[in-house]
Amino acid sequence: MSLRDRRRVIIGVMGSAHCDPAIYEQARAVGRLIAERGAVLLCGGLGGVMEAAARGAWEAGGITVGILPGGSDRESPPNPYIQIAIFTGLSEARNVINVRAADAVIAIAGGYGTLSEIALALKVGKPVVLLHSWRFESPFGEAGGVLRVAETPEDAVAVAFALLPGGDRSEHL
Amino acid sequence: MSLRDRRRVIIGVMGSAHCDPAIYEQARAVGRLIAERGAVLLCGGLGGVMEAAARGAWEAGGITVGILPGGSDRESPPNPYIQIAIFTGLSEARNVINVRAADAVIAIAGGYGTLSEIALALKVGKPVVLLHSWRFESPFGEAGGVLRVAETPEDAVAVAFALLPGGDRSEHL
Amino acid sequence: MSLRDRRRVIIGVMGSAHCDPAIYEQARAVGRLIAERGAVLLCGGLGGVMEAAARGAWEAGGITVGILPGGSDRESPPNPYIQIAIFTGLSEARNVINVRAADAVIAIAGGYGTLSEIALALKVGKPVVLLHSWRFESPFGEAGGVLRVAETPEDAVAVAFALLPGGDRSEHL
Amino acid sequence: MSLRDRRRVIIGVMGSAHCDPAIYEQARAVGRLIAERGAVLLCGGLGGVMEAAARGAWEAGGITVGILPGGSDRESPPNPYIQIAIFTGLSEARNVINVRAADAVIAIAGGYGTLSEIALALKVGKPVVLLHSWRFESPFGEAGGVLRVAETPEDAVAVAFALLPGGDRSEHL
Repeated sequence: MSLRDRRRVIIGVMGSAHCDPAIYEQARAVGRLIAERGAVLLCGGLGGVMEAAARGAWEAGGITVGILPGGSDRESPPNPYIQIAIFTGLSEARNVINVRAADAVIAIAGGYGTLSEIALALKVGKPVVLLHSWRFESPFGEAGGVLRVAETPEDAVAVAFALLPGGDRSEHL
Repeated sequence: MSLRDRRRVIIGVMGSAHCDPAIYEQARAVGRLIAERGAVLLCGGLGGVMEAAARGAWEAGGITVGILPGGSDRESPPNPYIQIAIFTGLSEARNVINVRAADAVIAIAGGYGTLSEIALALKVGKPVVLLHSWRFESPFGEAGGVLRVAETPEDAVAVAFALLPGGDRSEHL
Repeated sequence: MSLRDRRRVIIGVMGSAHCDPAIYEQARAVGRLIAERGAVLLCGGLGGVMEAAARGAWEAGGITVGILPGGSDRESPPNPYIQIAIFTGLSEARNVINVRAADAVIAIAGGYGTLSEIALALKVGKPVVLLHSWRFESPFGEAGGVLRVAETPEDAVAVAFALLPGGDRSEHL
Repeated sequence: MSLRDRRRVIIGVMGSAHCDPAIYEQARAVGRLIAERGAVLLCGGLGGVMEAAARGAWEAGGITVGILPGGSDRESPPNPYIQIAIFTGLSEARNVINVRAADAVIAIAGGYGTLSEIALALKVGKPVVLLHSWRFESPFGEAGGVLRVAETPEDAVAVAFALLPGGDRSEHL
């Protein structure tokens, strides 16, 4: 095993802290598929889509990382499927870390926080896959990072891995 | 003069570091009108729309604050119309400060960075006025902060002041 | 007036949110002297030493900037002498901005937060003046930024201006 | 296994990006001992003490997390023993995350960056163990967080685990 092999692929899943059951199940499936391909699941560590994705990854035996807005358990309790809780105390500025730390980002539904993460990811050149998420239109035909729309969890995860720098780096377990 | 009078209203102007001459003049007019109403002009401190807004405010005798992404003059030189340069070293995470420190936000045209600022402002409940800027549509009819579309610099500034918490706090000079 | 003249010198004053009356008066004198030399007073925006320094600067007709840990007035109300309140929502990470945005730092007494700011300032190469503040000793004779000890407010401010990049840039009002 | 069991204990090791061979071996032993007790090793992700601690933990089969100052591999390449690289783009402000995300902090030797992390940890109430590291003295007998001095890697790790909230949570592998 080379030194490089130690580094794990990280897929970020972004979405709202509250979501309906249908979206929850889609996010859970996304988390499971990410773990089955051997990548680390990173999210904002809270409820809703974040919990569902972490749950799916944890149920499939994967590693889950939560980048929390608060500075402690008391300020922002992680969802129960987060194994590695990274408290930041940065509030919304932690959204930037969600995006910077991920090799690719999957946004599922989501509110304004998720929209900020989609925009930040495109700004810094990360591949973004949208699943039942925001639509937007630039005043000047902004080009920027790679943006794809997926219709299913399977499609979203396959596209995210295909867009990784250096190509698909799945390590099927 | 009461203690409260010491605090200055801060209007944030967000936009791209590169823009065409027509947008530049609109941003300069916005900056001028903000200063004429006695508010502090805050922006990201770089070129394009940020420079134009700071220039307009400075030309009208206002105070200009730039929240810079780099940690020093060398890493991110402010535009020449910034009087108070706040270096952060936070890269894109400084976008959160742009929004948190402003009482209201005016977004002019802009790329993905500006979109992230619009989204963050709406997330934290700041009034946002769009001038020739992004259009977007939530998957779930996201409500959130107050969002208005303006057609001219005069309109944009008037709406921003009208939306300030506690009502219009112009202090005509 | 050249373009460069628009940029204002910023002196950061760091210290605890609680202090005894003797330290309060020393910090107030430091703030006053900074304003009398035409520089902007920057601090963490809260009480104690921060309030005293802002008060002294404000009483002398200077501009005062507070870099607040909270994201809003509600989360971290600025002291009443702050004119330009920069809310960050970054909690302790705002200490880095205090240091990055200042051309020189004066630390007055202070607790662990102030010690972190002294260390960060030296780390990034800012001149630091200590007034009745921390003493420390490196395990390895750490060299780094310029560190001076002052005995009076007059001495502290004179040393801080003398250590500015490019030499003393006082603009006596 | 209860839900709570999913959460892993995180021990942060702070120190300089450059160190002499004797300190390197002490840091490597600290990393190994942390992993042997079943905790996650968190560090700043760079060289020197950070590399040594990550190497020791990795060699013992542990999980290693690096909180990087840069926003990408290019800006701040992680040392080769980091499995989970959390890029932040926050520069020195990432020191706050090192401290916030750790349940206890061990500082080994170190420069001003490490001193800032010691101070920040004490500020936010994290247990801190010093191994051949800074000595400092407050102007006002600052009390604050728990601070211990250790003489050996074994001692440092034993003390850190003993100081964890809720008591020693070693999970010997």
